[in-house]
This record gives sequence, C-alpha cells and structure tokens, in this order.
Amino acid sequence: MDIEDFATRIRAGERRALARAITLIESGRADHRAAARALLDLLADAPGQALRIGLSGTPGVGKSTFVESFGMMLTGQGHKVAVLAVDPSSARSGGSILGDKTRMERLSRNPDAFIRPSPSQSALGGVARRTREAVSLCEAAGFDIVLIETVGVGQSETMVAEMTDLFILLMAPAGGDELQGVKRGIMEMADLILVNKADGDLKPAAERTRSDYAGALRLLRRRPQDPPDFPKAICVSALQEAGLSDAWAEMQALAQWRRETGHFEARRAEQARYWFAEEVRRGLLARLDHDPAMRARMAALGAQVAAGETSVERATAEMLTALGAAP
Amino acid sequence: MDIEDFATRIRAGERRALARAITLIESGRADHRAAARALLDLLADAPGQALRIGLSGTPGVGKSTFVESFGMMLTGQGHKVAVLAVDPSSARSGGSILGDKTRMERLSRNPDAFIRPSPSQSALGGVARRTREAVSLCEAAGFDIVLIETVGVGQSETMVAEMTDLFILLMAPAGGDELQGVKRGIMEMADLILVNKADGDLKPAAERTRSDYAGALRLLRRRPQDPPDFPKAICVSALQEAGLSDAWAEMQALAQWRRETGHFEARRAEQARYWFAEEVRRGLLARLDHDPAMRARMAALGAQVAAGETSVERATAEMLTALGAAP
Repeated sequence: MDIEDFATRIRAGERRALARAITLIESGRADHRAAARALLDLLADAPGQALRIGLSGTPGVGKSTFVESFGMMLTGQGHKVAVLAVDPSSARSGGSILGDKTRMERLSRNPDAFIRPSPSQSALGGVARRTREAVSLCEAAGFDIVLIETVGVGQSETMVAEMTDLFILLMAPAGGDELQGVKRGIMEMADLILVNKADGDLKPAAERTRSDYAGALRLLRRRPQDPPDFPKAICVSALQEAGLSDAWAEMQALAQWRRETGHFEARRAEQARYWFAEEVRRGLLARLDHDPAMRARMAALGAQVAAGETSVERATAEMLTALGAAP
Repeated sequence: MDIEDFATRIRAGERRALARAITLIESGRADHRAAARALLDLLADAPGQALRIGLSGTPGVGKSTFVESFGMMLTGQGHKVAVLAVDPSSARSGGSILGDKTRMERLSRNPDAFIRPSPSQSALGGVARRTREAVSLCEAAGFDIVLIETVGVGQSETMVAEMTDLFILLMAPAGGDELQGVKRGIMEMADLILVNKADGDLKPAAERTRSDYAGALRLLRRRPQDPPDFPKAICVSALQEAGLSDAWAEMQALAQWRRETGHFEARRAEQARYWFAEEVRRGLLARLDHDPAMRARMAALGAQVAAGETSVERATAEMLTALGAAP
C-alpha cells in the first residue's frame, strides 16, 4: 500500500479512499496499525477543521430520519457532511447497525455526504480511538461538518461528548412522567435538546415535552461555556423537515459564541488532554494483553492465586515487578 | 508500632486492635501502607475462615434494622459477626455514613459483633482493596461471619458480590410497577432476595412483591452455582425479627450445597483471580499518579497536547516509551 498516494487521494476528497482508510484504522492487525499511524501522521497538518457535532438519541426517536433530513439541508447549503456512528451495543450483536445507510437513502447517495456505520468492535476504549481517528480522516478529506451519532447509553454518550464541539440530544414526545427517564448526567452534557416528531397528532405532546425539558435545563447549574440562553430545547420534525434550519441556527450561534469567548478552543484543548491521558492508560494496560511473556506470567500467577498457593497481594507485587512497575 | 504484638492482639480477638488495624489499611500514607502489608502478611496463614455475605439495599429498605436484628440473632447462636460497610457515595459526602453504629445500637454494644462504617474514600478501586483487607483482618480476629453491606448502586454491588460467598438483596414492599426499578444485572447477582417490612399494613404488599421477584428470578437463566430452587425470594420483618431464621437457614443451605458441589471453592478461586488482575491493573496505572517524574512528564505532555503543539498519538507514544511500555 502506498501511504503517500493514499493520503493524496483522501485529501482530494475521494470517498472510496476515505472509506478504505477508516477500515484500516479499525483493523487490529499490527501492520495495519502501523500503516494507519503513518497515514494519520501524513494527514496531521490540518486537523480540527470541521465542526464536530455529537448526536445522541435512544432507538425510536427518529435519529436516522433526523440525520438524513439535517444532512440533506446542510449539503444543500454547500457543506460537506460526514456521519460517523458509535454503537457500543454492536460489539455484542457482532456487526454494524444494519441498514444505517438504507435508512438514510438520500444522504447515502449524496456526493457531499459520507456515512460510516458503527464498526463491530470490542472495548469502548478502542471505539473511542478509532472514532477520533475517523474524525481526523474526514476532516482531512474536506468534510466541514462531522456528525457523530450514538444511542442513548451512558458511557458512549460521555465518550461522544468528549470528542465533539456541540452535543445534541434528540428526544421523542413523551407522556407526563417520562422526563425522569433521561439521566441527569446526560442532561448536563446537552447543549441543545431537539424534541423530534413535532408533527401531526404528536405536535402538542412534542411542545409539552419541549417545555418540560426546557424547565429541567433551567434547573441545572449554569455552565461557563454557555451563553445565557443555553442549553435550550426546541421542537423539530425530521419527517416534515420543519425546524431544522432553526436547530442549525442555534448550533451555529452557540459555536460562534464559544469561538468568540475562547470556550471553543478551551474545550478542544481539554479534550486533547483527556484523550492523551486515556490513551496512556490504555497503552499501559495493553501490555498485559499484548506482550506474550507478560500474558503467560499473568496466567501462571492467576492460577497460583486461584489455587491458594499465593496471596493476591504477593502475586500482584511479583507481577508489577516483572512489569517494571513495582510501587 | 510493634507489628507482631499487633498481630497477636488481633488474633486474640481484641476489637480495639482490629479497629486500629483497619484504620491502618485505610491510610494512604506510604509508611502505613508498608506496615499494613507486613501485618496482613503475618496474619495470612488462616484466611477464608468466615462465611462472607454481601448485602445490598437502597436507602429506606431497612438495612440497618435488618443488620442489627440479623446480627443479634447470629451472635445469639454463638457466631461472631463482623459488619463492614461499603458506601461509594461517602466518597463525595466526605465521611462515613453518620450513625451507622447508632442505628445498630444493640449490635454495636455486643461483644461478639464488630461494626465498621464505610471509610470516606476516593476511588472505588481503593475501596475494594481496603475492604478485602478488612475482611482478612476480621477473619484473623476470629469472626466467622462477615457481612459486607452496600447501598444499591451498580458498581459497588458488583464489587461486593466479587468478594463474598453469598449475595443478598434486601428490598422493600413495592407498588405494582416498581419491579422494573431493579436492574437486571443486580437481579442476576442475587442468591437470595429478602423482602423486608413484611409486617403490619405492609404484609400483603410484601407478599405480592416477594411473589413478583420470585417470578422474575425464575425468568433468569439458571446458574450452575445454584441448587434447583435458588435464587429465591422470601419475606422477612427485621422490625419484628420475623423470618430471620428462615433467611439464615436458606443462606446456610445454599452455602452447604455450594461447598459440597465445589462451587464454593471455585467461586473463591475465581474471585482471587479477578482481584489479582484488578490489582495489577491498578498498580500499573498507579505509576502515573505516584511517580513524581512520570507525573511531571504527563503534565508537560498534556499541556503540549492541549496547546496543539503535539498530537494525542505522538504524546502517548512518548509517554509510553518513558514508562517502558511502548507498544
């Protein structure tokens, strides 16, 4: 594989090259990993060019329809939109969300859009690294908006919020009591809550839900990275393509305010620091899995501990000494 | 401090010596840590003598009342009972559960019982190590039943289940829909569900709740470590001291069955292996916090990453090389 040529084609915005590059970074093979590092290094000169938007919503809120409508609107305005999916549950089901692309039929055929379903992956830690690298690749390929969508389970949302500039919660109209279903921690991450399906019979319920969330958001402690009227909740209808330009205007206004006040860059700096610390931790622990000698030692000591031949404490001390990490 | 003398007094069952020893293992100071290791080493010849029972229940289910009544019953039968509390929330509130002892007035004055409130601690990982060490100390001091109680939040329950022989869920009588409130993962850990407050007006509700949980337990996949009729749900009244001997009989029957079938020892072996792997991971990561040179390097590289002077990947590679853990 000619990495330089590969990089050139990605920079030219070739979607097939981009797709292949993402497949490369998703690979666990050592030679692929080395090639991926070289490629990312070649493309590292212009990172951070896109607005990175995190989007979370539980199944059934109309996320695919929203991404399709929203993405079509953005490309219609001249943007290039990449959509990356993070679905930790696909680790277990053993594959990417079937039909991610088929459910976004128009967007997937749109030359200014790029949709990448969630890889079937192991640990969330690995997913994080791969997703961050995929963002870099999309930025190198000229996409100026990167949408990272995830399903509503706590850990993956935190991860997506830690790698995006804006974090959007997509909700469905709800009955009276369902507000409690949203975990406080996730509310606290949200910059904007979009209540979808504000159309037809559901319109009044959507408005009530919006008002409930707006109230709940007001009860949260104000965050320094928000202008006075944020976070806020608004209604949209992805199906009828209503409210999408309002939603986009809100996102732009927020991003603009954060850029002017320095919070945008500060958030990116904080995120870089966070991922650096995470990757160091992952790298330290990786030796236990990847170094054959260490793995054998762990297994042998684990067996001794299980058999009661040594104590947890003694075995730990011995292992840490072998790892050159004795306290 | 004369460690040998200390060990002798613990072995003699002196409660003050035991309490001081637990304070020692809870300390983060390096010299205390070394003394704690030496002490545990001296006492390591007879571990695993107690039946270790995990008990979880959310605030309001009557956990203190249950522990008091249950503990009094056990000491009345000639047992020596130690009660350790694990409350991860006390990390934030900055102290042990106020009044743990005052809420167990009789038991705390009982010479055959020892109650240790939750330490105000930092990371759950540290709490785990300290609690396991406290169990060893209690066993060395001659306690034949160690009760580890925790509040109903996922992570601490998993931790307690990973260090006990039996795991008991204490519940309160509930209205129709509340069954769903118990996370499936926690139901799957339970060996026995005790529905408390089966007295007075609440008696019918307790019986309904018991029946609901019994039904839910039947729906779970059967675990190899259970006799055919386990896990089960029964009613108790800690206030009226009713059903406690039934509960104890169930626990004994289960422990007995597991001992005879080898599952008891197999679980302990698995737990030892688990804690060994956990402690090695903790030890590896500890260098980042405890080694001043590494901490300085992390801070410097973190600042460079935040300023955009280097990439997360390059800084990670540099740090891992410094740690002798380059991939």
